[in-house]
Parts: sequence; structure tokens; C-alpha cells
Amino acid sequence: MPENDLYLALLHYPVMNRKGWEIGSALTTIDLHDIARAAVTFGVKGFYVATPFEDQQKLALKVIGHWTAGAGGLVNPDRKDALGLVRITGSFEEVCASIQEETGKDTVRVATSADRHEHSVPAERIKERMKDGPCVLTFGTAWGLSKDFIDGCDMRLDPITGKGDYNHLSVRSAVSIYLDRICNGL
Amino acid sequence: MPENDLYLALLHYPVMNRKGWEIGSALTTIDLHDIARAAVTFGVKGFYVATPFEDQQKLALKVIGHWTAGAGGLVNPDRKDALGLVRITGSFEEVCASIQEETGKDTVRVATSADRHEHSVPAERIKERMKDGPCVLTFGTAWGLSKDFIDGCDMRLDPITGKGDYNHLSVRSAVSIYLDRICNGL
Repeated sequence: MPENDLYLALLHYPVMNRKGWEIGSALTTIDLHDIARAAVTFGVKGFYVATPFEDQQKLALKVIGHWTAGAGGLVNPDRKDALGLVRITGSFEEVCASIQEETGKDTVRVATSADRHEHSVPAERIKERMKDGPCVLTFGTAWGLSKDFIDGCDMRLDPITGKGDYNHLSVRSAVSIYLDRICNGL
Repeated sequence: MPENDLYLALLHYPVMNRKGWEIGSALTTIDLHDIARAAVTFGVKGFYVATPFEDQQKLALKVIGHWTAGAGGLVNPDRKDALGLVRITGSFEEVCASIQEETGKDTVRVATSADRHEHSVPAERIKERMKDGPCVLTFGTAWGLSKDFIDGCDMRLDPITGKGDYNHLSVRSAVSIYLDRICNGL
């Protein structure tokens, strides 16, 4: 499968709850499926799922195992290809270290958010950045990545906006749209 | 909320199973949430969920009721806005009749598929068609809309392709990407 120099990270910490407090969130298993399928479609090199909670890491590994080594993969080989792309880690720092080890280069840390940041850029900008080295597109579960995390990244993407001011896409939809905007035509 | 002259239909019949046989499929409740949230984002006028099975219609109505009239809407008003857009029907014929009644015009029936059709067109073409009257973007659950159904529609969209030949996006991802391609910039 041809690939772009692009990685995905789905973080379960540090994210926000509905009140804007920083929390660690629970795994949503459909995220693994939908995002992995979109990742394979658009030639993403690796899809990291980061959670500091060991029981949640075990749950994710169980789901992946069913579809890659277990009965699920026999019934549905396409799903096996997708979930084979998922890598379970404990933190975003581990994600960046893993990409550095794989590519020999520092990765550009790209944050996403449903809210506009004063220094955000169009998603298409990542097309150019990927030519110089790996980029990791980072998504928050629950009510999104914490503000401190976003401020600490190297780049921030413009939020996906439509006809009005409703900005409550699922993370599964947001990943799909950003990947299409970045990888379409490559 | 500003709107485009665009409707969505998610069909549970006539669709295909993994062997290509025509079947009626079961409801996947996360489809209602993710697609409704994308529909509100991009100013879709109505999101029809069509299933011929009465028990499945009841299940869909129960989910919607929880989030619009029940406890869910109090906790999460944004989800209430989204699921308020969902309309449960028994067939695609009912969908078209409902749009005709609402707009006073025949709707352009647009099929989507993961496979390329000899007469398919880029999604952006719908931008123009919406200026003349309503369009209904139609998606199949399970392994997609049946070939006869696709042939009977007025238009067919190009499949969403990425870096390779993997074409197994979730219907939730496919809806999100098509809506972004059609409605972006409108």
C-alpha cells in the first residue's frame, strides 16, 4: 500500500470534558474501526491510540487482536488491514518517540480543534510540510484536546466549519474530512 | 441555521451483503449520531433514515426521542439539534415523496458507492445542481446500495479514493467527506 509521510494520534489524555476540565477519557471502540479504515484509505503510515489507563490499553489490544489475529480477520480481511495499522501507546510523548525511531526524524506535531486558534492554518498546508518529514495529526476524544496541549504543538489546523456555527462533528468525521483535505490529489 | 438545498438518505434496503446479495440491513445507532452531526454542520435540510422493518423504525425513534425529547437533550443540547434533523421512513420512495411535498419540486436522486460507475461524476458537481432544486444524497448501509438501485438514480458520485485501492470507509466517514466536498465554500 503506498503511503504518505503522515501519522495519526488519537489522545484520551489530556482532553477536556463538557465543562472544559482536563480529564482522561474512556476508549470508544468504534473510533478504532472508523479511523483505521480512513487511515488506510489515505495512506497513513501509523495510527496511534494513546491512553494512560492500562485497562483501556488492554481493551484496545483485545479489539485489535480479534480483527487481526482472531476470527474477525478471517471473516473480514479488509478490516484486518485497517486495524493492523493501530498502535497502542500510553502517551503522546511515546507517540513522538516511536515516529522518531521509525523515521529517524523529529515529527511535526499538528493539533486539531473544533475551536479556532489565533495561529491555525488550513489543512492543505500539511501537504507541503510532509515533503520535509513526518507529521502527526493529533485528535482529542471527549470534548477535544486541552488548550495547553494545543498551544504546545508545532502547528494547529483551522476547525472544520460548514454553513453555520455548529461545530460538533464526531472525531470520526473530523479525522475523515481532514485526511481527505490533506491527502486528496497526492 | 442556514441551509443548502440538500437532503441525506441512509438506506437499509435495498443494500448488499458481503456476497453481493440484496438484503435489508439492521440499524447501526451510531450512524444516526455521526451523520446527523455532520448534516447539521453542513446545513443539510433533512436526514432520512429508511428501513422497511417496523422494529428497526421503532428503535430509531426511541434513540431520537431520548436525545430530542428525553434526558439526552437536556445533558447535550448540541446532540438534540443534530438528532432533530432525522426523519424515519419506510422506503426511498417515501423519502422522495416527502421532499417533493416540502419543496414542491422533484428531487435529484444521487447515488453513492465505493465502486466506480461508468457514469459517475465528481461530488463538486452537486454544488451546481442544488441551485436548480433539491438533491438527495443517498447512502447504503452494509456493503452498499444495490446495483439496480444505483442504476435507477439520476446521478452517481465518484467513489472516494485515496492513496491505494482500499475502498472500505465507514458510511459515517463517506458521508462526512462527501458533505465537505459538496458544501465547502458555499
